[in-house]
Parts: sequence; structure tokens; C-alpha cells
Amino acid sequence: MSAPTAVPGVETADIEKVVRGLAKAARIASRTLAGLTTAAKNEILLAAAEAIEADAEVILAANAADVLRAENDGTEANLIDRLRLTPERITGIADGLRQVAVLPDPIGVVVSGKTLPNGLDLRQVRVPLGVVGMVYEARPNVTVDAFGIAFKSGNAVLLRGSSSAADSNAELVRVLREVLRAKGVNADAVALLPSEDRSSVTALIRARGLVDVVIPRGGAGLINAVVANATVPTIETGTGNCHVYVHALADVDVATRIILNSKTRRPSVCNTAETVLIDKAVAGDALPKIRQALQAQGVVIHGDEPGMEPATETDWAEEYLSMDVAMKIVDGLDAAVAHIDTYGTGHTEAIVTTDLAAAREFTSRVDAAAVMVNASTAFTDGEQFGFGAEIGISTQKLHARGPMGLPELTSTKWIVWGDGHIRPA
Amino acid sequence: MSAPTAVPGVETADIEKVVRGLAKAARIASRTLAGLTTAAKNEILLAAAEAIEADAEVILAANAADVLRAENDGTEANLIDRLRLTPERITGIADGLRQVAVLPDPIGVVVSGKTLPNGLDLRQVRVPLGVVGMVYEARPNVTVDAFGIAFKSGNAVLLRGSSSAADSNAELVRVLREVLRAKGVNADAVALLPSEDRSSVTALIRARGLVDVVIPRGGAGLINAVVANATVPTIETGTGNCHVYVHALADVDVATRIILNSKTRRPSVCNTAETVLIDKAVAGDALPKIRQALQAQGVVIHGDEPGMEPATETDWAEEYLSMDVAMKIVDGLDAAVAHIDTYGTGHTEAIVTTDLAAAREFTSRVDAAAVMVNASTAFTDGEQFGFGAEIGISTQKLHARGPMGLPELTSTKWIVWGDGHIRPA
Repeated sequence: MSAPTAVPGVETADIEKVVRGLAKAARIASRTLAGLTTAAKNEILLAAAEAIEADAEVILAANAADVLRAENDGTEANLIDRLRLTPERITGIADGLRQVAVLPDPIGVVVSGKTLPNGLDLRQVRVPLGVVGMVYEARPNVTVDAFGIAFKSGNAVLLRGSSSAADSNAELVRVLREVLRAKGVNADAVALLPSEDRSSVTALIRARGLVDVVIPRGGAGLINAVVANATVPTIETGTGNCHVYVHALADVDVATRIILNSKTRRPSVCNTAETVLIDKAVAGDALPKIRQALQAQGVVIHGDEPGMEPATETDWAEEYLSMDVAMKIVDGLDAAVAHIDTYGTGHTEAIVTTDLAAAREFTSRVDAAAVMVNASTAFTDGEQFGFGAEIGISTQKLHARGPMGLPELTSTKWIVWGDGHIRPA
Repeated sequence: MSAPTAVPGVETADIEKVVRGLAKAARIASRTLAGLTTAAKNEILLAAAEAIEADAEVILAANAADVLRAENDGTEANLIDRLRLTPERITGIADGLRQVAVLPDPIGVVVSGKTLPNGLDLRQVRVPLGVVGMVYEARPNVTVDAFGIAFKSGNAVLLRGSSSAADSNAELVRVLREVLRAKGVNADAVALLPSEDRSSVTALIRARGLVDVVIPRGGAGLINAVVANATVPTIETGTGNCHVYVHALADVDVATRIILNSKTRRPSVCNTAETVLIDKAVAGDALPKIRQALQAQGVVIHGDEPGMEPATETDWAEEYLSMDVAMKIVDGLDAAVAHIDTYGTGHTEAIVTTDLAAAREFTSRVDAAAVMVNASTAFTDGEQFGFGAEIGISTQKLHARGPMGLPELTSTKWIVWGDGHIRPA
């Protein structure tokens, strides 16, 4: 049984036309959003939260159709769990909008400013990016989260969710558009793109001049395909081959606790540890303890030591996202840094040590969005960092790096006031 | 006569190999640069300034060969003037490096930071981007400027200059590499790419994973080709179809002065005004005065009014970069904003008005890197903004917008210190 689409039975060329039409409409709507006051935006976010709760029955019915279709397709149980909505999850989605409503508005913030010697007044002010495209996987809550964050930061948003959540997403976006319309705001500020096949993704990432940024959230395959083929600027998110390095002067109990937490707290998320590096100098004591602790929790260890699954080259680069971990003995900090340089994805890297010089050297030399000293990799997270909301974790260096909150969905504009100033030759 | 290349007579596939080899070497060198102290970087910049002045004769001889070749090829006089070096220009290039040496080092600056409720210490610290690619036109001074800015901000730089400046660039880069080597720094921190044909550009913009950003500087054709085909993140620079809007409540003398300065100060640069919009309400008085003033300076006006060259649709989108300007009467601020929305490139837009509400509305609604009130478009410039050095003017919204100084060539890294912190379930 094939998945439904917002535009059933249309050709790829038509899908491109549909996507570009929605992008043009979103562009026009984005001009209005840029001028909305914080109070007006918050009122709409709260009204959207109410409307989603009020329409819970219709949303749950649409979701039941998605779930039934997934079950008939033989979809894995954990994917169905991500897809499924319940009354509690609907409340959670609505509460997410309420949380965004109370966050500070990034728009209009003066980032820097000065009066030049000639009297010109310069201000660098935060402005919305304009039109944001999101490509994401099955969870229907992302549809509303992404709208909330984009809307609060003054952006229109084009949502390209998974086809498996098409019915749920259609209902959620319908509710959001109705709220906008009721509040006198151009409803094209949020739109759901067709999800029948990849052609809508292609159209979105090549709509340069209409779409200001595309943020792919999902597996490495999707992210690479988007980044490699996009003409619209993109922000890579969420591929994490995170390492924990147990330094020669580590407290082994602390190391064990951090590794267990980094690996087993939520193995399916991007900040989970995928490789443990143990310094040769401490391996005799540390390795058996750490191995035992992990195995006691059901973690399968891939490595070259006895009692491990034999590791191949691919294990060092693998983002397992499961109860698996690679483990290697390294000869000193240089070797640890070199290993991370070779196999890391620039997400989160951790060192466990009691030695100040080692901690300083590791944090200085390792090139990643987040570098932890004596702390779990699980802390790389927008909520943990106090951002209140997160649109993803950027693993690229341009524009945003690490957890992205509201300010990461903005640009700036220089506003210059003069009294008839001209520039001397 | 064909232009020389760093690798004469080699095939495109070999050029790709050469470029990737230089990029890999630059990547390795960039690890060293990230750890250099400000004092060490400044010492090298000053030594490079000395070395360029000391080697002036050899550099001038190489440049003479470039100039002779350009003359034999029948190159336009103004392009030859950009290409030509003189003893004074050599001093100017060296002084440019000295100016960069005294600028504040952006690396290591703590952008934000806090202690979380659980005691984790968070710092967001400026770090280099890594490897920066520059694609640019004939001026050999850009070779040294780009090195200086990239080096001070801790980045390795791959330079893809114009083939017409190949001999000059080869000498300049040789001097820079010798200085690095003499100071014990990996000389691969700066490299000149082959410039025989576009294949080196293609190899550079597709070296994803090796090169962190490519900044094209040049005509709209080059910039579009780079941005559309790159898999490496890019920063668009310098396409400017800038407008000056004379509002209904403008002081006509102020408007005339600003328009003259915006158009004629340096018509060939990206911040020059290309279109004048005159409000219908003031056109009867303003249009003849402005037209006369421009024509007295030798500016050709393209428009629909008497005494102008008849304008076609292309004139509104044109970046003349010459003593030409388009001129149009618009019916109010809404029409001016709509015209700019349609034809602007998001560089610099100016309003001339005495009315506060109009100024506020224009600066709020116009979507551009810089919006001027009663000031010349010529002020959009890194030096004017007080940055001390400029790598270009970004017209995109992601990462950097407007004049780019040293901080715009950096990324950030979150450094997190704990005492064995783990994240609760």
C-alpha cells in the first residue's frame, strides 16, 4: 500500500510546481511575519496550542490512519511508536508551543552598534531569515515544534515531513493555518509539502531565491543527499559519532559512570557515545571495569580485545544509535585526538581526566561543536544548554554550531542613520 | 597567447588531484594555526610585510610579465591597471598586513557562557573555520590581503586568483610560504591553486570535508556558478543592485548630494547606487535637479522620462558598475519597497527623508544587508564600519551579512567542564 500525498497522482514536474508555488506564497507571508510584534506572535502561539487541544479528536483519527497504514506495511515497532499520537502527546505538543511563547523574541535585538567618528549611527539588528525549509522524519510533533520555533523567530516555514505521517501532518498544519487566518495573519506562513516521493525534497533544496535555508533532520543518507544537491544554503544537523576518551589520569569510576550515561541513557539520539577510547596507561584497570559495566547493561562492545565483537574499520566510523559501542585502546592523548580527527563527525567529544593540562589540550585541539571535560556527551542538547527550544544540533561550522535555538534561525541587518552623510573620495 | 599555470600542461583530472592534495595539506596545516598565539601570528604577519618589501624587485618583475601578457592579449586598460603593481602598491600591500597585525584576534574570544543549575560550566568560544577557499579576480593585492585576514583568524587559505595575475600571485605566495617556513609554521597554510581553467574552481568548491567555506569575489556570473555547483558551504559576496529612494518628504538638496555620491564616487564597486527611485509627490521638483546634477557629472540615466535613455525591464535589475543609473518615479513608499523587493540584491538600500515614520518603516521593511537613512550607499564597507579589514560584503543571510571582518571567518565551539556530571533519565 503506497503512502498518501497532499497532491495524489501528480507527476514530478507538477510537484516541483506545487513546491515552488508554496515557497513563493511563503515568501510573501514572511514579509508580514517580520513586522509582527512579540505580543502578536505569542498570542498566536497560545491560540495554536488551544486549537490543537480542541481538535485532538480529529488529529488522533488522522494519526490512527497513519499508524494503521504503517502497521499494514510491516513497519518496525519503534518507528510506529514515534509516529503514534496519544491524548498525552497532543498535550505535550500544545505545551511545546506554550513554552516557545514565553521564550525571549530574538527579532529586533541589537547585536552590536556604534556611532562612527563622522556621526553615522550604526545598529546591527536581528531579523528573520525569511523562509525556512525543514525536512524530517516520522514524528508528527516535529511539525508543530518547527512551526513554533520558526514563527516565533519571524520566519515562514515549509514542512516536508515523512510520508508515513502524512495524514497527521495534514491535520496539524490545517489547524495551524486556521489559527493564523483567524488572527488575520497570512496562512501561507506555514505549509506542508507533498511527501509522496523525494521530488518535493529536490524542489525545495533547489528553490534558491525563494527559500533562505533548508534544515534536514534525519539519517546521514538524507542529510548528505540534501547537502550535496542543494543550491539553497543548508544546515547539517545531527550526525554524531561521539567519543569518550579515558585519559591516563582518569578516575576510573567517574569514567565508567560517564560512559554508561553517554551510551545507554538514550542510545537512539545523536549525542549518544559511539566509541570509547581508553588510554593504554590506564587500560589494565579501566578496560575490564568499563567493559563489565557496559555488558551488564546489555551493550555489545566492538573492538580488538578479548570478550568483544571483532571490530572492522567501519566500526570506528559507525553511528550505531543502538546498544552497541566501539572500544579501542589508544597510546596517549595525541593518538586519541588523531583518532577523533579521522572518524569524528564534529558533534560531541569528551575526555575524562583529573589532569588540568590534558583537559586544556583536549578542548583546544579537538574540533567539534561541543567538547566535554568530565561530563556525559548527553548534555549536548538545546534544552540542557538552557535554550528552551531546539531545532536541531548543527555539526557544520558556518552560521550555527551545536544546539540551535531561536537566534540561530535569524540573520542580521545593518541599519544606518545619517543627516545627509556622503563618503569622501 | 594562453595564460600560464602553476601546473602547465596537465589534464583536468590531474588538476582535481592537485587541488585536493593542496586542500588536504592545508587541512593538516590548519590544525597548527588554530593553536598559534596572537603574538606568534602578529610576528609572522609583520615578517611577511617585511619580506614582501624586501622582495619587491622579483615581485615587480613577475608582475611585469603578467602585464605584458595582458597587453599582448588586448586586455582593457582599466583591467591592466588593476593588475599592475608599482613600488607604492607593494608598500600598500605590506602595510595591509601590518594593519591586520594590530587588529584584535577573534580566536579564543568567549562569545557566551554560563554555569548551568547542575554546576556544568559552559563557554562558547571563537575558533577558526579551518580551511578557507577564495576565488577572485585580477588584483594581486587580494592574494596577500586574503592570506592576512585568514591567517590572523587562524585559518589556512587556498587562493584561486585570476590566470592573468598568475606570475605575480606565484611570487607573492612563494614569499608568504618562505616566511611561514622560516618561522617554523607549516607552509601549507597558504597555497595558490592552478588557474589555467575553471577546473580548479570546480575541484575547490566540491572538496567537501576538506574545505570549510569558499568565498567567491567577482562578477555575478562567477558567484552564481560557484554557489549553484558547490557542495562546500559558500558565502555570496558583492553583487549590489543598490537603490536610493527619494521619499515624498525628502530634502531635495540632501537627496541630490547623496545620489551623486552613491553613484559617482567609485562606480565600479558593489556599493554604488544603480537605481534611483523618486517619489511621485516630489518628482516635479526633485527629478529635474537630480537628473541635471547626474548628467553634469557624465552619468547616463536610463528611464521612462524625457531626457533619459529609454529603459527596458533589464535596466531595473542591472548592476551597471559604470557611470549609468536607472531612474524611476514610484507612487509612495509601498511602491518603492515593492520595487526593491523585486529587483534588489539585498546589498544596500537607502531612503532620503525628513519623516521619522517613513524612515522607520523603510528600515524595517526593506530586506538587505544594510539600510541607510539619509546617508550614501558608499558607506557599506568594512573599513567604514570600523572593522579594519574586509574580506568581502556578504549578500546572503546565513553566517554573515554585510561587510565581513575577522570574526566572520570564524566558527564557535562549546567547551563544557564538569566534575563527572551525568544526565538524569
